[in-house]
Amino acid sequence: MSQSVEEIVSGLAAVAKSFHARGWLVGTSGNLSAVVQREPLQIAMSPSGVDKGELRPDQLLSIDEHAHVVGQHGGKPSDESLLHIRIVKERGAGAVLHTHSIWNTILSDVYAADGGIKIEGYEMLKGLQGVRTHEHAEWLPIVENSQDMPALAGTIGETLNKQPAAHGFLLRRHGLYSWGENLAQAKRHIEILEFLLETIGRTLHIREHGI
Amino acid sequence: MSQSVEEIVSGLAAVAKSFHARGWLVGTSGNLSAVVQREPLQIAMSPSGVDKGELRPDQLLSIDEHAHVVGQHGGKPSDESLLHIRIVKERGAGAVLHTHSIWNTILSDVYAADGGIKIEGYEMLKGLQGVRTHEHAEWLPIVENSQDMPALAGTIGETLNKQPAAHGFLLRRHGLYSWGENLAQAKRHIEILEFLLETIGRTLHIREHGI
Amino acid sequence: MSQSVEEIVSGLAAVAKSFHARGWLVGTSGNLSAVVQREPLQIAMSPSGVDKGELRPDQLLSIDEHAHVVGQHGGKPSDESLLHIRIVKERGAGAVLHTHSIWNTILSDVYAADGGIKIEGYEMLKGLQGVRTHEHAEWLPIVENSQDMPALAGTIGETLNKQPAAHGFLLRRHGLYSWGENLAQAKRHIEILEFLLETIGRTLHIREHGI
Amino acid sequence: MSQSVEEIVSGLAAVAKSFHARGWLVGTSGNLSAVVQREPLQIAMSPSGVDKGELRPDQLLSIDEHAHVVGQHGGKPSDESLLHIRIVKERGAGAVLHTHSIWNTILSDVYAADGGIKIEGYEMLKGLQGVRTHEHAEWLPIVENSQDMPALAGTIGETLNKQPAAHGFLLRRHGLYSWGENLAQAKRHIEILEFLLETIGRTLHIREHGI
Repeated sequence: MSQSVEEIVSGLAAVAKSFHARGWLVGTSGNLSAVVQREPLQIAMSPSGVDKGELRPDQLLSIDEHAHVVGQHGGKPSDESLLHIRIVKERGAGAVLHTHSIWNTILSDVYAADGGIKIEGYEMLKGLQGVRTHEHAEWLPIVENSQDMPALAGTIGETLNKQPAAHGFLLRRHGLYSWGENLAQAKRHIEILEFLLETIGRTLHIREHGI
Repeated sequence: MSQSVEEIVSGLAAVAKSFHARGWLVGTSGNLSAVVQREPLQIAMSPSGVDKGELRPDQLLSIDEHAHVVGQHGGKPSDESLLHIRIVKERGAGAVLHTHSIWNTILSDVYAADGGIKIEGYEMLKGLQGVRTHEHAEWLPIVENSQDMPALAGTIGETLNKQPAAHGFLLRRHGLYSWGENLAQAKRHIEILEFLLETIGRTLHIREHGI
Repeated sequence: MSQSVEEIVSGLAAVAKSFHARGWLVGTSGNLSAVVQREPLQIAMSPSGVDKGELRPDQLLSIDEHAHVVGQHGGKPSDESLLHIRIVKERGAGAVLHTHSIWNTILSDVYAADGGIKIEGYEMLKGLQGVRTHEHAEWLPIVENSQDMPALAGTIGETLNKQPAAHGFLLRRHGLYSWGENLAQAKRHIEILEFLLETIGRTLHIREHGI
Repeated sequence: MSQSVEEIVSGLAAVAKSFHARGWLVGTSGNLSAVVQREPLQIAMSPSGVDKGELRPDQLLSIDEHAHVVGQHGGKPSDESLLHIRIVKERGAGAVLHTHSIWNTILSDVYAADGGIKIEGYEMLKGLQGVRTHEHAEWLPIVENSQDMPALAGTIGETLNKQPAAHGFLLRRHGLYSWGENLAQAKRHIEILEFLLETIGRTLHIREHGI
């Protein structure tokens, strides 16, 4: 890894503060992680139940591939740690971010019956890693929400396998997951997907009425 | 109490600043309180008519269970102090927060005839104390607004008794009340309820038209 | 006056920064003033063409009752200084604020044919000076926009005379004016009226469709 | 030039931070430039792929009229540098700004078939350089998006020639370009055009339904 643990955890805290200000992590919702070490896997993970607008670097937990806390720490890892670990494994991600925004919540429900949202024709898509043109069609899968985390991790693993080009997915009435090779890329992906979801949501308000 | 009075009042000022920035306490609206002592009851309460974006810890008042100011202080307690005291007594709350947001104002009116709003199926609900699953159905009662504070405190007492599981309530065309065991939990509850009300409000814009 | 000139101009700069952040003074739009001295009248006035997010106290101009700059200063007073002076005289105001927000622009046009907007039944109205109950009906007059400032000042004078209880008015497709005995009260009035206009505007989105 | 290179690049970084906070440059989108020297042409240009909320003055690149980097610098100029250069040449601009906002993205699509958007009757128009009255009609051309930058630069050159009074243009489903004699004026133009696009977009939500 090119970054020290200190840089990783302070980076996660900075992203948490920025996203909380945008209203994407309110009420202690959402969570953030970054890989500290690959072999054996060690991940810096936001703790459960903490105000993301005030997350301090020393509150980040280290977890292993079974979501067990490494070393001594009073905090409890997020319930969704298994999802982060699965994404890290399936995609080789270096960072995973999960946001609860108004628009991702709404669209994850409006398009649930379609199983996902096709996002096509926007210049912003070019900011997704590997995308070269606005003519790209991004499929953002929607997965039914569940409190059974091992089962949900399994469903997400299958979804990622079926959609190898996807840069993120939605949990229905729950939120958005995205990731990247490193934290900066993961942050970029979240900002882009949130932008596109809000654009689509606000366009629905207009388009439904025949413009 | 585990926190000092200094910590409590500086915590209230920080929440006031944060909520004012979000537009939930503009124009000196809304108010905030936290229990300093249970026996006899003493509550730190925001004063009437102060800009919440600039609330200083030394401006917080101490009031007793009759909403009378304890000690010497030039400020006047909020008219709604009786409501805070009633909530503290009925729920054993350690902190009570009251916000005026655009969306809570709108929905408190749109759903007034139903007597409340059923909020169901959202992951964000899990952030409410004691809720374990997104399948939870939260009933957010709506109480008709009034300037007769003792009468309104009585109505709210009855509402809280009838709805022992409610984490908050709306005053019609007025605002949202929520609370928690401590200030952090009360802040979390407000952020969650405001998020869900905005989500429902924006979904109404879309859903009315047949998507 | 109870405040020094230094306090007044730094207060105006702080309000400008806060309102610019909310998007109410973007693109050098809007203007702010406060009375420094009554006899003869001297007003601290924001200069024309300055970015309100970066307004420095030393950029505020002193103008007399004819909108002429008092003393030596390189800045040019806002074209709308005559409107501020008229409001100060008609209402005895200590501060006058003028914002360009998205919602005040939209509603000033949507309700133009009615000559104003009746705002009634909202708790937020209680924050307007002298209002004791949410049952208050505030009439917010809408005046047709014009570039002829002396004529517009005359029309505004008449409007204020006809509506002695009004706490503000709209210029059509232009913006909101409000005022107060001092800057804090004027800021409170703007925040309240902007809140109510946004509430009414967003309710229109829903109500038109029969909820 | 009246400003030093240091002032220009720190000014660009400050505008980037401000616009990122408003959500107009998220996900490394958008770009900013300012002329450092006219003969031969040298432009300070934001690099490709950088988080605009954290853009540092030393990250700005110097490019010549062929969009080649001048001097030694590890960064890569934005793909859209050719568009900035064309605008500088056609308009004699001292600064060019390009934003990706929700509303400019939506309206660039909704009005694409019209080839542009007529914006008329708003006081905010007076903030555009040379406009003296709200009765001004601004034509904001919409150009079809493309990844062929030399071709797109040609199309933009033709559009600017055909519309000599235009203060900006939209790329369809992509974003807004505006400019000014200097950075302050370019920033003002972007803030005004973004304001007007959001106003028109939100009015569409209402107007479609017969108010």
